[in-house]
Amino acid sequence: MDSYRIIQLKQSVFADNDADADLLRREMKEKGAFLINLMSSPGSGKTTTLTKLIAALKDELSIGVMEADIDSDVDADTISATGVKVIQLHTGGMCHLDADMTRQGIRQLGIEGLDLVILENVGNLVCPAEFDTGAALNMMILSVPEGHDKPLKYPLVFQVCNAMIINKTDVLPYFDFDMEKVSKFARMRNPNIEIFPISAKTGDGIDALAAWLKQQVKKWKEQE
Amino acid sequence: MDSYRIIQLKQSVFADNDADADLLRREMKEKGAFLINLMSSPGSGKTTTLTKLIAALKDELSIGVMEADIDSDVDADTISATGVKVIQLHTGGMCHLDADMTRQGIRQLGIEGLDLVILENVGNLVCPAEFDTGAALNMMILSVPEGHDKPLKYPLVFQVCNAMIINKTDVLPYFDFDMEKVSKFARMRNPNIEIFPISAKTGDGIDALAAWLKQQVKKWKEQE
Repeated sequence: MDSYRIIQLKQSVFADNDADADLLRREMKEKGAFLINLMSSPGSGKTTTLTKLIAALKDELSIGVMEADIDSDVDADTISATGVKVIQLHTGGMCHLDADMTRQGIRQLGIEGLDLVILENVGNLVCPAEFDTGAALNMMILSVPEGHDKPLKYPLVFQVCNAMIINKTDVLPYFDFDMEKVSKFARMRNPNIEIFPISAKTGDGIDALAAWLKQQVKKWKEQE
Repeated sequence: MDSYRIIQLKQSVFADNDADADLLRREMKEKGAFLINLMSSPGSGKTTTLTKLIAALKDELSIGVMEADIDSDVDADTISATGVKVIQLHTGGMCHLDADMTRQGIRQLGIEGLDLVILENVGNLVCPAEFDTGAALNMMILSVPEGHDKPLKYPLVFQVCNAMIINKTDVLPYFDFDMEKVSKFARMRNPNIEIFPISAKTGDGIDALAAWLKQQVKKWKEQE
């Protein structure tokens, strides 16, 4: 179970990333694999959240994970222990993935028979939000210790995400974090954003998030 | 006290940022103002740490602050309440500042009579580390909730920093954060990195950090 490859991504040569992202979305639709782009700051708990989500989803969905990082493989190591298919993508210092880099990863991962592919983007609230990866769904994690003012300071990532996961709710008593304010600020950026408070550590809220994701995959599969 | 300007930075046209950064370092030396470049992830407590540091230093040093952000002015508002000279720099979506953008900020701030200028860089562990701003000293904050594995995942920022501040030590009991491991990992990247555990919230450790900074400014002023 504990094996995965490390892929060195090449910088894209395509001038029009938006068009390429739309093309990748069509390719993924044909192959029937729902692609999620997961973004957050370093240390917000992306990998721990993923391991809990995988546990909640893997009986019903066949899952593959792409762990993008500047140059470590700490996360792929953790994810490979869950038993799902995983590869590590190295960006060679770059702070984001675009659609073509995502496509390189997908080819290496191999998505035959997968229902759901999750891209764990580079830990960063700025650059990843600027590039459409071709995902069917964008999701971000904001953790309680980061503070409720982040939608004011990093508008774009909240604007492009379909869902905001608020992680580390188990430490709410120790931080000055206002759940109402963060919801209000996030909805200023994106009125339709779905909000899921969770604690990846205790498992609180994971079921609601997993149920919503299953529904998104189902709706997408039914679309023509 | 509560007034500051917002400056929209222009993208630099200089091809050789390293040479330009060295030039800015010489310009700052001539003017006698020590420039600190402060980097971290979003939500690590840069602004709270700064307000505490300013309180500890402002009787002895005349301080100016440049708050860089994608497009908010939350931080300049907080810093202006400390009574020091402050401006807000907007990067227009860019995830870093280079030497020329830093120089634009310095001109707008006006550094006549200042001993110490602190640049609060954009919240991000990747891109800001790739560009020499021309600072005399690079400093970063890693907060306890982010985890002790960050030097493994974001090597460059640890490599280029003279000091790592470990913030939010008041919540150590609630997180699986290993102070020995983080020190070991950071020193793998940079054997000479200075490490300062602090809690900006309670004030713990601020005095030691402030004393070290005063010493750095003094040594720099005495250099030919």
